[in-house]
Amino acid sequence: MGNATHKKRIYLAGPEVFLPNALEIGERKKQLCETYSFIGVFPCDRKINTQGLTPHEAGLSISRANEELIKTCDLVIANITPFRGPSLDVGTAYEIGFARAQGLTIFAYSNVTRLYTERVVADPALGVHQDGDVRRDKYGMLLEQYQMVDNLMIDGGVLYSGGSLTTFHAGKELYADLRGFEKCLVLASQTAGVS
Amino acid sequence: MGNATHKKRIYLAGPEVFLPNALEIGERKKQLCETYSFIGVFPCDRKINTQGLTPHEAGLSISRANEELIKTCDLVIANITPFRGPSLDVGTAYEIGFARAQGLTIFAYSNVTRLYTERVVADPALGVHQDGDVRRDKYGMLLEQYQMVDNLMIDGGVLYSGGSLTTFHAGKELYADLRGFEKCLVLASQTAGVS
Repeated sequence: MGNATHKKRIYLAGPEVFLPNALEIGERKKQLCETYSFIGVFPCDRKINTQGLTPHEAGLSISRANEELIKTCDLVIANITPFRGPSLDVGTAYEIGFARAQGLTIFAYSNVTRLYTERVVADPALGVHQDGDVRRDKYGMLLEQYQMVDNLMIDGGVLYSGGSLTTFHAGKELYADLRGFEKCLVLASQTAGVS
Repeated sequence: MGNATHKKRIYLAGPEVFLPNALEIGERKKQLCETYSFIGVFPCDRKINTQGLTPHEAGLSISRANEELIKTCDLVIANITPFRGPSLDVGTAYEIGFARAQGLTIFAYSNVTRLYTERVVADPALGVHQDGDVRRDKYGMLLEQYQMVDNLMIDGGVLYSGGSLTTFHAGKELYADLRGFEKCLVLASQTAGVS
């Protein structure tokens, strides 16, 4: 704003806010952003005073603060590693949709390389079985065959925003491995420019 | 549009598009909308020609079509019943976020009454355990205690949009039971007006 160089702001979406060392991961991500001449914005950055609030009220305050943070950003890099099931964290999915409608460019990385369909099939609790020409889960819900990283709204939203999806086999550090994240930064530098 | 009465359009988000009788459920939902003087818009409404497309291209076409449909609507009623894990379908989560940023009023119903925290605890595969003052899953990810139906971005987005969340114990017809859906229609009539 008034500077010759306006560094683009990247909202750092993902479930790593639930890690015991969330703030440390956030700092590492922000430092990596700095390396690529971006400003990283971590959900925990905005300090929220939850004193005297009920848990429900506190949750709503965080929700509002995150939405406001997204609105201040130009890009999103979302960690879409599967979370408590075959798909990404739904809070992150919400934020990707929100950012997409706001016109942000979105990059996403998953620390699991298998595609969505394979992940659902691989989970015995989901009871995937053949039903004529298609496969369904134990509730009869169709198993999509779109060769996508996750649900088509996620892959579609990211790609139509001008960004891209990256998968990386991270192994043990499922949520904290930042190699996929850094690849997104490289792609963001090339695609979105840093002007 | 030139008429004295402009019926509001409701985007019908939810995983029931994966049911074997998806179109029938869609028709039932649209008829219920009509009963409450709304126009229901089902994701499958827009016919997409996927002939000659790869599965990936077809998926992207559906993604784009759904986004365009949401933009034509005034409200969303989202089925946020847990899907392949303790949380709602991520495609629906994306659509709620997208609609929220577009300024739509969002109502959500779940056919499971237990709150998110209870659902995560109840799933032995997630390995929730006590860790000092908090509970974490098998990956060390914090279990939130916000007394919410799902992730705080979902509950927050719905409530801040001017809508509300409804839970209903649907029993066997987990995704097809429409009593929670109809309750959302009643609430939408009262809150959003039909003018």
